[in-house]
Amino acid sequence: MNLILLSPDDIENTTLARVRCPRRLAHLNGIHRACEGDELTVGIENGLLGKSTLLSISTQEAVFDISGLNQSPPPALPVHLVLALPRPRMLARSLEHITALGVKQLTLLHTHRVEKSYWQSPELGEDKIRQHLELGLEQARDTVVPKITLARGFRPFIEDQLEGLLKGRQGLLAHPGMPDACPRGIETPTLLLIGPEGGFIDWEVEQLLAAGCQGIHLGPRILRVETAVTALLARLF
Amino acid sequence: MNLILLSPDDIENTTLARVRCPRRLAHLNGIHRACEGDELTVGIENGLLGKSTLLSISTQEAVFDISGLNQSPPPALPVHLVLALPRPRMLARSLEHITALGVKQLTLLHTHRVEKSYWQSPELGEDKIRQHLELGLEQARDTVVPKITLARGFRPFIEDQLEGLLKGRQGLLAHPGMPDACPRGIETPTLLLIGPEGGFIDWEVEQLLAAGCQGIHLGPRILRVETAVTALLARLF
Repeated sequence: MNLILLSPDDIENTTLARVRCPRRLAHLNGIHRACEGDELTVGIENGLLGKSTLLSISTQEAVFDISGLNQSPPPALPVHLVLALPRPRMLARSLEHITALGVKQLTLLHTHRVEKSYWQSPELGEDKIRQHLELGLEQARDTVVPKITLARGFRPFIEDQLEGLLKGRQGLLAHPGMPDACPRGIETPTLLLIGPEGGFIDWEVEQLLAAGCQGIHLGPRILRVETAVTALLARLF
Repeated sequence: MNLILLSPDDIENTTLARVRCPRRLAHLNGIHRACEGDELTVGIENGLLGKSTLLSISTQEAVFDISGLNQSPPPALPVHLVLALPRPRMLARSLEHITALGVKQLTLLHTHRVEKSYWQSPELGEDKIRQHLELGLEQARDTVVPKITLARGFRPFIEDQLEGLLKGRQGLLAHPGMPDACPRGIETPTLLLIGPEGGFIDWEVEQLLAAGCQGIHLGPRILRVETAVTALLARLF
């Protein structure tokens, strides 16, 4: 936890915040061994961050002076990521990686090779997703919560959403065997699409290419989704 | 498992291999539902790979015709990676990512912020490490087993090993706050050093810079080691 992330509920006024969330309190008391007077890095959800004095701490609450927060969160990546819904355990870890790397818009997509049961997983619950986003933000010292959209059908996504997502963005379809190598160090707003374990099926690739996406690859190695997401984001931006 | 990796023990002669390893047999029978006559991707440890006909399969063994293996494994990354020993669960995953990405030389290093108990973890057993390397190779369709070295002291590493490792390699020290951004798309043989959670301490950074390493960073975000390793390798090479 490299940042204490304050939710709107924690903010008492412009100078005081009270953290009562058991997870963050346990971390402050147990791992940080925080004491009254300590200077800690604190950030307001979707707002500023900076050093903050811990005014008091107990097992019930931690009170921070937030009058000095004056830093902007680190820049976001210029990407809307569309990721075929991974299996639950990999989803959890991927959400943390993706958030830490600075993705702010994520669509989780159904495709032919996504097991239907994944959509019933408790990992997709709002609280569970939120928890992984918080861990990613706390890791990377960021305050801006990513927006997650669930697209439970591939065809409706293609027919109703893709055109809108491609307005003002270049579409990049990451898929093994595509003709072009993944570009490096771009700044163009991008819609990046990544398939499930086993990849998109041919028909899905055709639909995405027909909609104007460019097919890109990461080389001959087949990577796990989790590795591929981080590798693609790090190479692209 | 995108490749069946054959160990020397599996090779009967230049045309026949018998797989008796329970893990791979269970995968062939359970996940692949492999049948006599199937064509599967097979590779010989540290050797060639290609399509191979499954001549017979039971719960006891799978017999492959390996006379047609004629592809070279995918190119390795031109890097020797020096990674501060991560905590055991992260080590396991990092070994798989690193192997899948094509690292062939890895030194696991003790530093001030590496907990001593990590060196006692069963995850450091030869069999355990080997298992994660195999999973990485099977994932990426590679056959060349990475070489792992344990450096249990920071000072002996600096005094006895670093100079040799820097012969013919540029040294890159990845550490938050270093002056230069991580280079992109290089082909130079590289020694890449990555610290533990919490980073190298100042004295360690000074030692590494004094030995000729260049300090590089990945931007203002603090990443988990696991994410940072993949991001650095994907951006550098």
